[in-house]
Amino acid sequence: MRLAVYQGGAVGGGVAEQLDHLAEVARHAAVRGARLLVLPEMYLTGYHIGADAVAALAEPVAGPSAERAAAIAQATGVALLYGYPERGDDGRIYNAALLIDREGRQLANHRKMHLFGEIDRSAFSPGDGQPTLAEIDGIKVGLLICYDVEFPEAVRLLALEGADLILVPTALMAPYDFIARSLVPTRAYENQVFVTYANRVGAERELTYLGQSCIIGPDGAELARAGRDEALIVADLNPSSLSASRAINTYFQDRRPDLYGALVAERPVPRDVAGGTL
Amino acid sequence: MRLAVYQGGAVGGGVAEQLDHLAEVARHAAVRGARLLVLPEMYLTGYHIGADAVAALAEPVAGPSAERAAAIAQATGVALLYGYPERGDDGRIYNAALLIDREGRQLANHRKMHLFGEIDRSAFSPGDGQPTLAEIDGIKVGLLICYDVEFPEAVRLLALEGADLILVPTALMAPYDFIARSLVPTRAYENQVFVTYANRVGAERELTYLGQSCIIGPDGAELARAGRDEALIVADLNPSSLSASRAINTYFQDRRPDLYGALVAERPVPRDVAGGTL
Repeated sequence: MRLAVYQGGAVGGGVAEQLDHLAEVARHAAVRGARLLVLPEMYLTGYHIGADAVAALAEPVAGPSAERAAAIAQATGVALLYGYPERGDDGRIYNAALLIDREGRQLANHRKMHLFGEIDRSAFSPGDGQPTLAEIDGIKVGLLICYDVEFPEAVRLLALEGADLILVPTALMAPYDFIARSLVPTRAYENQVFVTYANRVGAERELTYLGQSCIIGPDGAELARAGRDEALIVADLNPSSLSASRAINTYFQDRRPDLYGALVAERPVPRDVAGGTL
Repeated sequence: MRLAVYQGGAVGGGVAEQLDHLAEVARHAAVRGARLLVLPEMYLTGYHIGADAVAALAEPVAGPSAERAAAIAQATGVALLYGYPERGDDGRIYNAALLIDREGRQLANHRKMHLFGEIDRSAFSPGDGQPTLAEIDGIKVGLLICYDVEFPEAVRLLALEGADLILVPTALMAPYDFIARSLVPTRAYENQVFVTYANRVGAERELTYLGQSCIIGPDGAELARAGRDEALIVADLNPSSLSASRAINTYFQDRRPDLYGALVAERPVPRDVAGGTL
């Protein structure tokens, strides 16, 4: 399967202009032969726009923006994953990402489960963390958003559910280059899955986004890597690299879940946050 | 604290010659001002020497080699961590690493908990996985061996117990360069701990070891990195980089252990090891 990642920021204007832009990006992805297009976190509205703006722009998962996106997927023949603020049936607002297939059907909606700092906490409720998975073209796809992927636990949970490809809309800002360059490839390697990381670029208020979106193979190889400017990157996912990497690294046969009990214990953080006394 | 890593292979001869070599390396480390010296997995005997040789050379944790190593630590004023085959009180043989302080006292003994392939399984029983921690110069040190560090779960468990510095004797062979270059730095970054990775070099039977030993800061930075030849690398561990990285990455406050239950479930591997159908 050929997969595309769009890396970019807000185009200016509002959600309607962003949806026009989505249609244009999806057409470009179609021309390049992509079957699935992954866009950044909060692509429809911007990410660091303040809790009031988030609340004003939040829509239900089956809202008008999702309807328009479904029409774009159908018209271009490209499945879409994009970030947006979701107003849940429970009245809460979530930092969400919606996956729509080429027929315009909603396949999965992920709510960010690990909230990042005050930006997230002031605007969003956390997702309940049930693994979000769907199937596209026979591939088992798992969804995470930004900070989620930094937790090895979150990626492991999806891999244990059989994910072959993990899609991560993100809004990674300075000074977190290490995450795009080393941590994300390690998540692919340690779970033998493809990982796709779609970042924003440019600035929002005091934040500067880092770009460096990537498509990583299950052996940790960079199949595609963007720079710091707007970009559409594309890669072909080769299923034989899944079986090859799983033959070389048998982590899932060799894990020792009997020893991992403390990972799920609820308890105060014992570490001295002020640092040790080296 | 100044820490040294010795990267090398067997010197030829037997365990007695290897202990002579240990004394020499420890003197070099002392001259360079190191307070702690980390050596590779199965440093005393060689790693890929066959199950019979391992059984013949295995010693109790308080055996004659450990006594000699304690004398070396005392004479040089350098704490030591080295790998060796341990014969347990239970009669089983473990792939172990022994930490001895500058007064020659045994501080901790780690038994490899994740066994690697037939080489390990034919020769060793797995450790029971209780986190192995000790304190040196006021630093909380955690111990792992080789394959253990590749499991994010294993490093997380030590960090949850308060480790500031994780020491990993290893025997990393081709084609696993990614582990030394990206995975090990990611372990440091995602847990905000120092990680020290001490590898073998050269060949043993069909294996070629990769060197590339390293000392990584809690921000993922390479404080020291060896090439593929024998080397003694040294770095100063600065406690302020612990607090700085813990202020930037608040993973331990933001983890959601309530959602991680499946990590500790014993169940068959659901993944199709033959790969997906992309």
